[in-house]
Amino acid sequence: MHITVYPTAAAILTEELTGKAAVVIDVLRATSTIVTALGNGAAALVPVLSPEEGFAAVAADPEAGHVLGGERHSVRIAGFQLGNSPLEYTPDTVAEKVVIFTTTNGTRAIRRAEAAAPVYIVSFLNVSAVAEALRELGRDVAICCAGTHDHFSLEDTACAGALVDALAGPEAVADLDDLARVAREVFLQYRDRLAELLHLSRHGQNLLSLGLKEDLLYCSRLNSLPLVPIYHDGVVTLVD
Amino acid sequence: MHITVYPTAAAILTEELTGKAAVVIDVLRATSTIVTALGNGAAALVPVLSPEEGFAAVAADPEAGHVLGGERHSVRIAGFQLGNSPLEYTPDTVAEKVVIFTTTNGTRAIRRAEAAAPVYIVSFLNVSAVAEALRELGRDVAICCAGTHDHFSLEDTACAGALVDALAGPEAVADLDDLARVAREVFLQYRDRLAELLHLSRHGQNLLSLGLKEDLLYCSRLNSLPLVPIYHDGVVTLVD
Repeated sequence: MHITVYPTAAAILTEELTGKAAVVIDVLRATSTIVTALGNGAAALVPVLSPEEGFAAVAADPEAGHVLGGERHSVRIAGFQLGNSPLEYTPDTVAEKVVIFTTTNGTRAIRRAEAAAPVYIVSFLNVSAVAEALRELGRDVAICCAGTHDHFSLEDTACAGALVDALAGPEAVADLDDLARVAREVFLQYRDRLAELLHLSRHGQNLLSLGLKEDLLYCSRLNSLPLVPIYHDGVVTLVD
Repeated sequence: MHITVYPTAAAILTEELTGKAAVVIDVLRATSTIVTALGNGAAALVPVLSPEEGFAAVAADPEAGHVLGGERHSVRIAGFQLGNSPLEYTPDTVAEKVVIFTTTNGTRAIRRAEAAAPVYIVSFLNVSAVAEALRELGRDVAICCAGTHDHFSLEDTACAGALVDALAGPEAVADLDDLARVAREVFLQYRDRLAELLHLSRHGQNLLSLGLKEDLLYCSRLNSLPLVPIYHDGVVTLVD
């Protein structure tokens, strides 16, 4: 199994994805939120690139009771019911609902990964579950970190490293590219202090300045939600 | 001093470079070769994006005795006098000559960095000398890794980390972005075995398969050439 890691959404080389499995990672907070929403009973999430695309999706089917969720500049979008905090995606707000979802970095990475199949959604919350699905599949893996505004992000890289470590195993049987190797080392260095890592990261510091410390703690809980979300035909649902 | 690191030539956010100093790093082998050529007496290097641009530059001034150097797929370009091995850039081949130079990743990164001023050229060979120049300048620094075919590269990141470490000092006084932090950790992990790091990297393995082991050893010699090459108006020369 060959493992490639892309550091940002913009850096994903879409022409390399054909025939591979992909995973998309945006720890703070899009993929943590997607995993949480599905864990709390959301029927599906539909990643869209802009608020306008979100409003249009709701307008196209006003009886469906879709929920609009997402952020710009880490803040809930005006007219949306939910922001991008996983803590808002409770059973009360999302159970049995379809969530139309847009974020600055994460949804773009998901859409750029769609030349791969399958495309799984990963956060610290569900690394092991997705690693098991990927091992069963046995395909080469492209790990697509969303990054933050086209910059490399510490937290997405560490999460990529957690997945690399779970896939490669102690015998390092997988064939790792340079960033997969570095990501794994970052994860191993911080594995027992992931909340500290999120506090150190640029994006984490920005969220802390907005009073979102609880989000960082929540997003650092390794393997707390053993779920496998899959993106297919524009929609994220859980693999049975 | 704020330090930003870009992982690949394509990932350089040119709009962020204005008002900053930039350094360009392509350890294997463009920036190691540029430093070596200038150390061996080359009058200047002119980075161009394509072999055609190189031939045109020579044709425009056939009496000047320009030397054509560079590679595609790690191999000397047909019609060029020199390839991209620093070991070819001896006093015999380059002293007092202007070298027209094109490589797959490095020259592209140099050209993308040109919105910054100054733009310095860095390899393991000359990290400390450039760090000293940057400290004197006191400007924010954008470290532009060339990467390998738009992929993150271990060796460029480690060299970026060596520069971050030299700039930040033991008190870590600089303000580091996430990749600057990770790069520094990669460097500190490998600082006493840089040749091993070059052997581990994807690009290093490719060069080894072409029989270029001596190039890897040469490019790993930390601070062996205390020179400060600067790129300005399309030309790389030495700072006095």
